[in-house]
Amino acid sequence: MSELSFKLEKPGNARAGILVTPHATVETPCFMPVGSQATVKTLTPDELKDLGYKLILANNYHLYLRPGTDVIASYGGIHKFMGWSGALLTDSGGYQVFSLSPLRKMSDEGVTFRSHIDGSEHFFSPELAIKYQEIFGADIIMALDECPPVEASRGAIESAVARTQAWALRCKSAKTRADQALFPIVQGGLHPDLRRRSAEGLIETGFPGYAIGGLAIGEAKDQTVEITAATTGVLPSDKPRYLMGVGSPEDIVRGVSAGIDMFDSALPTRVARNGALFTRRGRIDIANARYEGDKTPIETGCACYTCLNFSAGYVHHLFRAKELLAYRLATLHNLYFMRKLMRDIRQSILDERFDGFARNFLSDYTPTDEAVRLAQKRQWLQDRNQP
Amino acid sequence: MSELSFKLEKPGNARAGILVTPHATVETPCFMPVGSQATVKTLTPDELKDLGYKLILANNYHLYLRPGTDVIASYGGIHKFMGWSGALLTDSGGYQVFSLSPLRKMSDEGVTFRSHIDGSEHFFSPELAIKYQEIFGADIIMALDECPPVEASRGAIESAVARTQAWALRCKSAKTRADQALFPIVQGGLHPDLRRRSAEGLIETGFPGYAIGGLAIGEAKDQTVEITAATTGVLPSDKPRYLMGVGSPEDIVRGVSAGIDMFDSALPTRVARNGALFTRRGRIDIANARYEGDKTPIETGCACYTCLNFSAGYVHHLFRAKELLAYRLATLHNLYFMRKLMRDIRQSILDERFDGFARNFLSDYTPTDEAVRLAQKRQWLQDRNQP
Repeated sequence: MSELSFKLEKPGNARAGILVTPHATVETPCFMPVGSQATVKTLTPDELKDLGYKLILANNYHLYLRPGTDVIASYGGIHKFMGWSGALLTDSGGYQVFSLSPLRKMSDEGVTFRSHIDGSEHFFSPELAIKYQEIFGADIIMALDECPPVEASRGAIESAVARTQAWALRCKSAKTRADQALFPIVQGGLHPDLRRRSAEGLIETGFPGYAIGGLAIGEAKDQTVEITAATTGVLPSDKPRYLMGVGSPEDIVRGVSAGIDMFDSALPTRVARNGALFTRRGRIDIANARYEGDKTPIETGCACYTCLNFSAGYVHHLFRAKELLAYRLATLHNLYFMRKLMRDIRQSILDERFDGFARNFLSDYTPTDEAVRLAQKRQWLQDRNQP
Repeated sequence: MSELSFKLEKPGNARAGILVTPHATVETPCFMPVGSQATVKTLTPDELKDLGYKLILANNYHLYLRPGTDVIASYGGIHKFMGWSGALLTDSGGYQVFSLSPLRKMSDEGVTFRSHIDGSEHFFSPELAIKYQEIFGADIIMALDECPPVEASRGAIESAVARTQAWALRCKSAKTRADQALFPIVQGGLHPDLRRRSAEGLIETGFPGYAIGGLAIGEAKDQTVEITAATTGVLPSDKPRYLMGVGSPEDIVRGVSAGIDMFDSALPTRVARNGALFTRRGRIDIANARYEGDKTPIETGCACYTCLNFSAGYVHHLFRAKELLAYRLATLHNLYFMRKLMRDIRQSILDERFDGFARNFLSDYTPTDEAVRLAQKRQWLQDRNQP
C-alpha cells in the first residue's frame, strides 16, 4: 500500500486536487472535522460519512493520555477503536503540549509535560511521537514540532524553527510503517524569512506533504493569511499543503486563495455547541430571543438534517433548555455547512471562477467582529491552560 | 376522530392489547420514553421511531414554563414543534409541581407554584391544566391530581384522594377536544382502602383509561407492586391502565403481572447518562475499569445500534472522557433494551407463557440493591427540589 498520492486536477493559486490515502480518496481543498478523543463530539461515524466527510482528525496527545497506547494497540488502531472506516490524520501532540499541559519542559531531546487530566508526568520525543502514531495507525501522521506562542521573541521562534527541523528529520528516520504518510510542520511565527527558512529545510529533507503550524493562535486574521501565502509560495506545488487549526468559513476561503489544500479546526463544532450556527450571511446565535417560535429552518434552503427536520424555534428551545440534542443538531448543521462550502469552493476552482466565488462569499458573510474574536480566542486559550 | 380505542387481545392478570390513538396504534403492554421538554434526551424522533416506539411522553409543567403555551400553539401543538409523528401523552404537571417547584400552595381551586427555572409564580387549576394540554395536542392527556409525598399522613392522603376526584370531574367537564383521551389518576398512597375509594370514584365518573399515580416515589418495591395489584383489581378490565413513573426492567415485569398496560419512566434514559446500562443479568456500570479495552459489545447478542457498531471498551472510553456521544449511545442501548423487553413480555402473554417468562427474567436480572436504590431515589428527589 503506497503511503499517499496527490494529484492536482487544477493547479493555480487556489488549487483542486485528489488525495489518495489507504482508507479513502479525498477531494481537496478539504476541511477535516476534529475528533481529538476518537470521536467528533456528538456525532457517530455514520453521520460523518453521511455528511460526506472522508478524512477526520484525531490527536496523539489526547489518545496517548486516554485511553492510552496499549488499549488502542489492542484494537489494532483508532479506526477499529472508534468504528471509523474513512481516512484519519493524527496530530503529533506538539501543539496540545503547548496549549493544554499545565507544565512543560522542552529540550533538544523532547518535551516533558504534565497531563491536563491528572497531572501525571510524561515525555514525548520525535521518536516516541512516531511510535505512538504508528500504533494509532492514522493514514497521515504529523512530525513533532515546537509551537511557540504568537508573542514569543524572534530568538525563541528562530530556535523553535531549528528544533522543529531537527525533530522532523528524526521523525522521518524513526518512521517504520509504509502505509502512513508523515507531514512535517513549518514554523516561524509571523516572520516571513523564518517561515521560508523553516519550509526550505523541510523541503530539502523531503516529505509527501507539508503543514503550516503556529498560526491561528491569537494573531490578527490578516497576518494569518499573509504568512500563509508567504509560506505556500515556498512549498512545492505537487504536494498537499495543510494549514493547521484553521478555521472559520471566511478563513478557509482566504486560506484556499493562499494555496492551501487541507484544513482542520475544532471551531465549527465548538461554536455549534455554544449555539453559533453558520449561514451564508455569517454566524447566528440561535439562543437569541429573536428565534423563539421561529418556524423557518436555521437557514432557508439548507439541506442539512437539522434544517430539513426542525425549525430554528425548536433548536432555540433545545438550547434554552440545555437539552443534549441541541449540541448534536447544531453540530450537524455547521459540519454540513463546512462540507458544502468545501464542495462549492472546489467546483468554483474547477470552473475557473474561484476568485468571484471568494469575493461573493466574503462580501455576503459577516465574520465575527475581529476585536471580539481575538478576545474570545485569547480567553479560550487561557482557559484551556488552567489545570 | 374517536379519542381512543382499546382492545384486549389476551385478557388475564397480565394482558396484551392494542391501543389506537389518533397518531399511532400501540401494542400493550408498552413502555413510553420520557421527553418532558419535547425531546427524549439525546435522541431524534427518527431514532425513537427506528427503536420501535410509537407513543412517548411530554410534560405540561415543563412545556408550559418553557417555551410556553403561545409558542407551542403557534406550531399547532407539540407534534409539529418537535417533529414527532407518533402518539404523545402529556402529564398534567401535578407531579412536577409536587416534585420540582420550590414552593407550592394547594387549595381546592388549584395549585400556586413557583417555576424551578426562574422562581416566577404560576397557577394551575384543573381547567387550566386541560386548556394547556389541549393547546399542546397530545393524544392522551392527564387530569390534574394532588400527589402527596409517600410519608404523608393518612389524613393528608385521604384529602388528596378527595381533591383528585373533584379535580378529575372538573377536568372532564373542561375538556373540549374530541381527539384527545383524558385519563384520571388514582391516588391513595400505600392504603389499599383509599386506593379502592379513589379508583371507584373515578370509575363512576367514567374515563377511557385510568392511571395509577403516587407510586415509585420512595416506597419499597414490594409495596409498589402490592398497591398496584390492589388497584388494578378494582379497575375495569376493558380500559387501559397506566402505572405512572415505573420504571426499571424488573418493576415493569412485576407491573405487567399486576395487570398494567402502560408504563413511563425517565429511569432508563437517566441512568443511561450515568453509564448504567441494562443487560439480561442486570445493570452494568460501563465506566467501571473492567470495561477498559473490552472488545465485546455491551451485551453479546444485543442488536441495538450501539452494540452492533461499538465495543464496550469504546463506550467506556467515551464515558471516561465525558464525550457527548457517550450519553447518546447509552440511551440508544437502554431504550432498545426496554423496547425488546416489552416485545418479549407481550409475546409471552400471547403465547400464554408469561409467568414462566417473568420468573426467568427476574431470576436472571439482578436489580440494584434495594437499600442503595432507595437512598439514591430519595437523594434524587431531594436534589430535584433544590431551586
